[in-house]
Amino acid sequence: MNEFELIGRYFTRPAQRAVLGVGDDCALLAPAQGRQLAISADMLVAGRHFFPDVDPYRLGHKALAVNLSDLAAMGAQPSWCTLSIALPAVDEAWLAAFSAGFFALADLHGVELVGGDTTRGPLTIAVQIAGEIEPGQALRRDGARIGDDIWVSGVLGAASVAVLARSGKLAGQGIVLSAEQQARCGERLDMPTPRVALGRALRGIAHAALDVSDGLLGDLRHIAARSGVAAELDWLQLPVDPAIINLPLAMQQQAVLTGGDEYELCFTAATAQRAALQALSVELDLPLTRIGRITAGEGVHARAGDGSPLLAGARGFDHFAA
Amino acid sequence: MNEFELIGRYFTRPAQRAVLGVGDDCALLAPAQGRQLAISADMLVAGRHFFPDVDPYRLGHKALAVNLSDLAAMGAQPSWCTLSIALPAVDEAWLAAFSAGFFALADLHGVELVGGDTTRGPLTIAVQIAGEIEPGQALRRDGARIGDDIWVSGVLGAASVAVLARSGKLAGQGIVLSAEQQARCGERLDMPTPRVALGRALRGIAHAALDVSDGLLGDLRHIAARSGVAAELDWLQLPVDPAIINLPLAMQQQAVLTGGDEYELCFTAATAQRAALQALSVELDLPLTRIGRITAGEGVHARAGDGSPLLAGARGFDHFAA
Repeated sequence: MNEFELIGRYFTRPAQRAVLGVGDDCALLAPAQGRQLAISADMLVAGRHFFPDVDPYRLGHKALAVNLSDLAAMGAQPSWCTLSIALPAVDEAWLAAFSAGFFALADLHGVELVGGDTTRGPLTIAVQIAGEIEPGQALRRDGARIGDDIWVSGVLGAASVAVLARSGKLAGQGIVLSAEQQARCGERLDMPTPRVALGRALRGIAHAALDVSDGLLGDLRHIAARSGVAAELDWLQLPVDPAIINLPLAMQQQAVLTGGDEYELCFTAATAQRAALQALSVELDLPLTRIGRITAGEGVHARAGDGSPLLAGARGFDHFAA
Repeated sequence: MNEFELIGRYFTRPAQRAVLGVGDDCALLAPAQGRQLAISADMLVAGRHFFPDVDPYRLGHKALAVNLSDLAAMGAQPSWCTLSIALPAVDEAWLAAFSAGFFALADLHGVELVGGDTTRGPLTIAVQIAGEIEPGQALRRDGARIGDDIWVSGVLGAASVAVLARSGKLAGQGIVLSAEQQARCGERLDMPTPRVALGRALRGIAHAALDVSDGLLGDLRHIAARSGVAAELDWLQLPVDPAIINLPLAMQQQAVLTGGDEYELCFTAATAQRAALQALSVELDLPLTRIGRITAGEGVHARAGDGSPLLAGARGFDHFAA
């Protein structure tokens, strides 16, 4: 199987909305009139972003999900993407599963794969995605206002516990997860659900938003810094994933406040929006939890149940940390 | 230096035409009304697409150039790009040079870097690019017509001779390049000039076009297959790079007909366009050479000076060839 056969078999489908799809020097697209484009790109590297032996169907899902999550965090409607992939070798079963996972999620969100590149190399996946958004409606990081509530979708902490479990660090501390806990945590790590419908619904409601990819405290720092405000979080309000509530408290706090790979949306909104957000939570069948508030000042300050500072030095995940 | 400092120092510049540039979950762009978007993505892997010790300024140039070349091959006007890069470690001198090379070329073509990703991993560079094109004006691969001339820009063969020289394969055959030859060949390999102005000028003139990235014969097969025609090339008409004309004839033929990394445009046009193309060659100060013609049939057929078939089995570069 050569490169072109590989692309043809696993990554080429008839153009849908694209004027011209995979197979020429470029794809051609006709953007909707009067919309802006929201653009993002993420790269996943074997051994850093995923375990090299991860199920390829799940990897295909996740490679697209993390990009869809960036569109969700802007309130954009997904439209098309490109996929560049370096593979150590051609493994047809792997490719079939990877592309099935990728396209299943693409179909769910109506996002069209219009181009990319395939090469040999250490397993690396680079997706670039574009969505459409009405001018002035994007959920930016710089719009948080003093007095806003801080909200988060879903429940937190299980994805990073899955990393601890798979890397043997839980066993090293004498902690054993049940089969159900393991499955739930693994599902959260491998198969994140990009909150696209939530992002769309937050247009006109949220003042600022982002997705939780590098850890809640570190990610919230971006909203605080760009908006020129402080963020205060109350541990007792945080939605801890039921799959991890029998773990030691310090481990729960670490996982919920600093764990990456959650892909939930964290956003701020005026207190006047509480009823609307509670109704939205019911409509989307998705927990939306008030976890703190925006105040004057700077930085992100989490407090434990007794009011003491929690993980004050925590920063977001940094690929280049010493 | 952490990941965000790295992005801030080397890859963030004030937004120009973008509504919102680097630093949020997505960039926001306002596409021009009435234009289509041409989209392409290329991934470069250390040790496969470039020598790991290549000058980083040149690598920054090339990473963008190969993507601009895809836009050129469609006749599109470059507008914005994303850059995702995996780095084995933070090397500030390397990053400064890489980003300088990248932005120097970006500035030359008015293309704006609006987003991307930075992570640790085996050195890998994924660029995705977008340009604007008037509806119906794109230079596709499927438009070649029987009777068309086949043209190529520039002169060919030096880039792949540089690969042979750097990998020690020339020395292995007892061939020594002069310092001038080495410099010229290296320049062609490392610093390709994307033919953007040519691509724009070919709108309304060329019937089909692509850029020569995997070897002329292999690339032309795409035009022949998609257009349902054959392509005939005459070796004596091919523009051989002066830097390689003292090499053995068979080596020249291999380099010119099958060498990748040229990033010249190969296109077809009606014979009535010969005068216009000669004038364009003068205007752009760029050789445009008629190298063959489109005929009924299939495949690509190159003939030597005596009429005998040349490199009949040649295919384009294939990353997954056995």
